[in-house]
Amino acid sequence: MARVRRTARKEAAAGRAAARGAGPAPRRGRNAARGGSAGQVERAIAGLGLTLPPAPAAVANYVGAVVAGNLVFVSGHGPVKDGQLTYRGKLGREFTTAQGYEAARLVMLNCLATLKAAIGDLDRVRRVVKLLGMVNGTPEFTEQPQVINGASDLLVSIFGDRGRHARSAVGMGSLPFNIAVEIELVVEIR
Amino acid sequence: MARVRRTARKEAAAGRAAARGAGPAPRRGRNAARGGSAGQVERAIAGLGLTLPPAPAAVANYVGAVVAGNLVFVSGHGPVKDGQLTYRGKLGREFTTAQGYEAARLVMLNCLATLKAAIGDLDRVRRVVKLLGMVNGTPEFTEQPQVINGASDLLVSIFGDRGRHARSAVGMGSLPFNIAVEIELVVEIR
Amino acid sequence: MARVRRTARKEAAAGRAAARGAGPAPRRGRNAARGGSAGQVERAIAGLGLTLPPAPAAVANYVGAVVAGNLVFVSGHGPVKDGQLTYRGKLGREFTTAQGYEAARLVMLNCLATLKAAIGDLDRVRRVVKLLGMVNGTPEFTEQPQVINGASDLLVSIFGDRGRHARSAVGMGSLPFNIAVEIELVVEIR
Repeated sequence: MARVRRTARKEAAAGRAAARGAGPAPRRGRNAARGGSAGQVERAIAGLGLTLPPAPAAVANYVGAVVAGNLVFVSGHGPVKDGQLTYRGKLGREFTTAQGYEAARLVMLNCLATLKAAIGDLDRVRRVVKLLGMVNGTPEFTEQPQVINGASDLLVSIFGDRGRHARSAVGMGSLPFNIAVEIELVVEIR
Repeated sequence: MARVRRTARKEAAAGRAAARGAGPAPRRGRNAARGGSAGQVERAIAGLGLTLPPAPAAVANYVGAVVAGNLVFVSGHGPVKDGQLTYRGKLGREFTTAQGYEAARLVMLNCLATLKAAIGDLDRVRRVVKLLGMVNGTPEFTEQPQVINGASDLLVSIFGDRGRHARSAVGMGSLPFNIAVEIELVVEIR
Repeated sequence: MARVRRTARKEAAAGRAAARGAGPAPRRGRNAARGGSAGQVERAIAGLGLTLPPAPAAVANYVGAVVAGNLVFVSGHGPVKDGQLTYRGKLGREFTTAQGYEAARLVMLNCLATLKAAIGDLDRVRRVVKLLGMVNGTPEFTEQPQVINGASDLLVSIFGDRGRHARSAVGMGSLPFNIAVEIELVVEIR
């Protein structure tokens, strides 16, 4: 299955919602006003040839991330590219493990966009603490770790040792919009 | 499928257990002794025409909520009404999305009962931080966000902006007692 | 289905990885250098006739546990015994609930091995805060709480009241390596 590229307004809205797997409205962090000068972490992202997507807008009674003390809890996010839902289908049926890896990498990029919107500057990340990688697969699919490595590898590429996290990579019965991968995060900031 | 109303003792015990989805024995928080004068949050609950159910009693080696510093981790709870299990079955088969929404609202009411028992006074809630909404559905069910909105909407009705939380709303393979929805929470208190 | 006892190198590596369900490389905690003198908690473990397995070694871009302030987030772990994957199959099909209970107990022992490696001394545990018990079952399997009791009961046997935790015990669509049970933990330390 290829990426979904429907341009209907409804799909785009679904895309923005699913960028959070379900969850919007990050508030501006205290450094958000700093403006355009990219920090060290964002330069690392650019160095990988990647660009942070726009953070999802508020659409319901939940938000993309909440800061509680030094911890940031980031909502479950999905694979959204150019405002459109992609990778819709199950691992072990519509997608291979290699495609799942790419999906997980894309999901993490969406998570980081929301994280930046919540804390203002990704250089405030002290440690990526915990990742829950949820894979939409058939009941017999067992390569969840290899799929979620797409997200874990990206975190370490970007943050180095600060990106090494605790995680669970597990198989769900199903996921919103039939997305292949959804990931939520806990991050420690300074 | 309608609500389950069996009156056997065993079912009632299962109900109390499932009110936690699995988890009992909240300790009394430091304000518990305050007694009957309802706080602002409880008046908001009453204003919605709702009543907090009794908090589930201890039944095993886990508890309904644990306070760690300023964070409260609330166990997974299920849809219990009048001490009885309700909404037993899968979304996309026994229940519609609209019924799931009602189930999620009921589950959240049970979560809040446990939270109150754990911290003594719901006015101590500084922010609802994170919600994990687990939906028991068929492998093709994809409307988990619409189901879990039942819980998210209730939180914002009760707590206002303090009720806006990060969340994941996802599909499980199955749930205890075949309940349709189970939700766990992280809450920040003062 | 019996325990898997294949001795191929690859399986052993998978075993070490699955001991984390997915997650390696715990760092040595500040008390790790204390050496061999077992603390109170480890004497309790020995008193139950149990031995902590070796903590899993680093194999990828995630770790077995991350300490953030006073909280430790322990990665999802699986049932590994003598470096080999065991209990591979689904509850309600390959395994009975009683076998699942034993699997959950074994998983928790692996979690504690990683926790010790991360914090140096299990006596630093102030409270087991939250457990997410993930059961690989058929869509109709509903005895997740009874399965995860194997982990909860062990925690209380070892830690007493400090071991009483919030938890969710839920059914997954599938799990890595087709393991029957995976558990992740949040622990408060001093």
